[in-house]
Amino acid sequence: MKNIFVKDILPLLGDNYKIMGNKDLYFNNISPTESVNEYSLDWVNPLKKNKLEYIRNSKAKIIICEDSLSIDEGSFPNKCLILVKNPKFSVLKILDKYFNEETAPQIHPSAILHPEAEIAEDCYIGPFTYIGKCKIQQGTVIHGNCYLYDNVTIGKNVIIKAGTVIGGSGFAYLRNDKGHFEKFPQIGGVIIEDNVEIGSNTSIDRGALGETIIGEGAKIDNLVHISHNVKIGKHSAIIANTVIGGSTVIGDYSWVSPSVSILDQLKIGNRVTLGVGAVIVENIPDSEKWTSIPAMSFHDFLIYKRKLKKGTS
Amino acid sequence: MKNIFVKDILPLLGDNYKIMGNKDLYFNNISPTESVNEYSLDWVNPLKKNKLEYIRNSKAKIIICEDSLSIDEGSFPNKCLILVKNPKFSVLKILDKYFNEETAPQIHPSAILHPEAEIAEDCYIGPFTYIGKCKIQQGTVIHGNCYLYDNVTIGKNVIIKAGTVIGGSGFAYLRNDKGHFEKFPQIGGVIIEDNVEIGSNTSIDRGALGETIIGEGAKIDNLVHISHNVKIGKHSAIIANTVIGGSTVIGDYSWVSPSVSILDQLKIGNRVTLGVGAVIVENIPDSEKWTSIPAMSFHDFLIYKRKLKKGTS
Amino acid sequence: MKNIFVKDILPLLGDNYKIMGNKDLYFNNISPTESVNEYSLDWVNPLKKNKLEYIRNSKAKIIICEDSLSIDEGSFPNKCLILVKNPKFSVLKILDKYFNEETAPQIHPSAILHPEAEIAEDCYIGPFTYIGKCKIQQGTVIHGNCYLYDNVTIGKNVIIKAGTVIGGSGFAYLRNDKGHFEKFPQIGGVIIEDNVEIGSNTSIDRGALGETIIGEGAKIDNLVHISHNVKIGKHSAIIANTVIGGSTVIGDYSWVSPSVSILDQLKIGNRVTLGVGAVIVENIPDSEKWTSIPAMSFHDFLIYKRKLKKGTS
Repeated sequence: MKNIFVKDILPLLGDNYKIMGNKDLYFNNISPTESVNEYSLDWVNPLKKNKLEYIRNSKAKIIICEDSLSIDEGSFPNKCLILVKNPKFSVLKILDKYFNEETAPQIHPSAILHPEAEIAEDCYIGPFTYIGKCKIQQGTVIHGNCYLYDNVTIGKNVIIKAGTVIGGSGFAYLRNDKGHFEKFPQIGGVIIEDNVEIGSNTSIDRGALGETIIGEGAKIDNLVHISHNVKIGKHSAIIANTVIGGSTVIGDYSWVSPSVSILDQLKIGNRVTLGVGAVIVENIPDSEKWTSIPAMSFHDFLIYKRKLKKGTS
Repeated sequence: MKNIFVKDILPLLGDNYKIMGNKDLYFNNISPTESVNEYSLDWVNPLKKNKLEYIRNSKAKIIICEDSLSIDEGSFPNKCLILVKNPKFSVLKILDKYFNEETAPQIHPSAILHPEAEIAEDCYIGPFTYIGKCKIQQGTVIHGNCYLYDNVTIGKNVIIKAGTVIGGSGFAYLRNDKGHFEKFPQIGGVIIEDNVEIGSNTSIDRGALGETIIGEGAKIDNLVHISHNVKIGKHSAIIANTVIGGSTVIGDYSWVSPSVSILDQLKIGNRVTLGVGAVIVENIPDSEKWTSIPAMSFHDFLIYKRKLKKGTS
Repeated sequence: MKNIFVKDILPLLGDNYKIMGNKDLYFNNISPTESVNEYSLDWVNPLKKNKLEYIRNSKAKIIICEDSLSIDEGSFPNKCLILVKNPKFSVLKILDKYFNEETAPQIHPSAILHPEAEIAEDCYIGPFTYIGKCKIQQGTVIHGNCYLYDNVTIGKNVIIKAGTVIGGSGFAYLRNDKGHFEKFPQIGGVIIEDNVEIGSNTSIDRGALGETIIGEGAKIDNLVHISHNVKIGKHSAIIANTVIGGSTVIGDYSWVSPSVSILDQLKIGNRVTLGVGAVIVENIPDSEKWTSIPAMSFHDFLIYKRKLKKGTS
């Protein structure tokens, strides 16, 4: 790995950083705490207690920490401390520039494209991925083993991880006179706007008549199910194992934790937070925070059950 | 798109429809409410309030609505109103006949079949799908990126969406004297009866000794996990992200909502309804409706927690 | 199927078995209770009531049962009873020796390997599986339609079922000043130790800087999501549809039931049991058992709701 000098990374830190100690040092790796060595760039998580002790004990010479930390000039003469507003964000920028591998544009020879698929020239389509009659704009990366049905429209710089299925027909049945299911035909599509990222083994169904829409900059994790005609707002996050029911609308800048289940036909506002495992069966106004009841120890559960029984019988 | 006249669709509506207004009109699309135009067929959802106002405001000239709606003859001279018992069902029939794309029979050249797989001639097998030593009857459609292990038997007119895995070995371990897991061999199979539909990225494990069975006409959504030796009854629905534990039996005509978890070795009756997120740890008799506790706002949760604490300590 | 004599299976039963009745019998199948015939090996589940009646009614001639069962010599003159400490474990051993199909080593011609992937000679890699720049040790079996990103290290005798994705980048975003997400680069890897088994359609993300680790002998079911930097202890079980949040550590010999959700940054101890559907938001000490609130009938739910309302308003 090549050596990166302190002066190299300064342009990534914005205007309001402060440097203390030896500015001529260099590093060649960023590693988890237990593997930090003398050539690492280390950083102090703002949630950590005993930050000065952490700095003292770190084997790294270059350390990024919060600018609110009070450190006497000369306290760490052999190190270089870089004080910034948000250390994690600065590490993000440095990792992104020096350690992140770009995916080079390519359509993998094993990928299969519908003859009418329109794919911009600088996209990546991975091995064993099938692309139906879709439109995909520039800079988009679709990893291997994905399956895109017809009528999926994807914007710029979208990333889709392996094993994800987009545009399948939704779960839409009516029971007939015999009680047997008949399928309501699903003739819509899917629109995925710019800068969306979608995890692995996720399923996004197409609209029944109109479109299922994933708004600009939204991030969707692994193993998520998004039903027909759902609309996910811009810059919202949908974490792993979540289910969003048909035609439900989620606003902008919202955060949906893992394993949330949201019924169909609901409206979830902007900047809403839904806690892990939340079961949502009603509309939720902007900026609210909803949560499920977490698990309890078996001991507490027995008391709870007794109490509940007294109440219900 | 071609023009479809009112008289063309009448044979799809059964015997008990009623027409008011101009019978000579035609349409060429069925669209979501926000995109309805003068050449759309529109319909009035029975759940809607202000149905007459909806009809008046719709840009569409041909509108299907409930026959229980009281409309004066001549109220809408420029439109054609078709009154039926179940408008959504009528739209289903029209969509199915005029707008639904059939999947033409084909074994995609990239699909791989076990040399002893028996596949009826008019099936569809999609790209990158592997079919083990299985029997598949006529009219069945298996989309791309699916994987069928050996010993899966599939009936007629079954649909399996992309990325689904059927017939994998079940999760069946015994701890030995050292506390290490030893696997109970899984030598059974899977039987999928006629007219079943299975979503994308779903996993159905084979039986340990006997078979895992999905009953006729049952509909299974995306990202569902069905364990070894489960039996799903006829015409039951299993919605997304649900888990059904080993050897559990679900009756006929039941409805299992999203994100339900059912323990192993249980019996769930006929015509049972399980609500979203329900955790089921006991048998449930026929026709019962069970439900989980939904999420609450953080404000309510703090009160709940205080109350619970008082009770448990 | 070939005939297997009682004397053939005795070496599989350890030192402390006892035989009663006719030792010269043979069997040629092991079948589920409803399909047992006169050439089956049958066994009595220790959980069963009326064990003697079960033995009397079984069509099988050779039956394995618990050695704690009190049976008079000569009670079943036409059968051969084999009494052991753990009947299910004995059946496991017999199935494993006589009925379990081994997966022969092969790299399927349709599989695609990164040119720098290191795969030991006696592994199996299935159809449509992509292996990035990974190291895989001997005896490991990876079924079809799997996708392994770069930097995944897999030990000996690991089994990975179809459709599973390992080593994708984790869900790690920071909101910038505009509230848009920026991705914290994910440059780590995944280590899967010896004798691990992983189900189908499961997703295991790579570490952000270090590694995500699945400990020796751990068993992971279908449709599980394991986030970046998670550590699963040795000989622990993670059942279907479970989510484990980033950097969470699970100890050894623990049991995580289906549909459990565990937040990030937590420590779950050794020999912990988490019940089905449990939502875990705090650390759990060794050997504890935690559980969620199961679903209730709609009737009970209405009473519960009334009661809760009284408490919260």
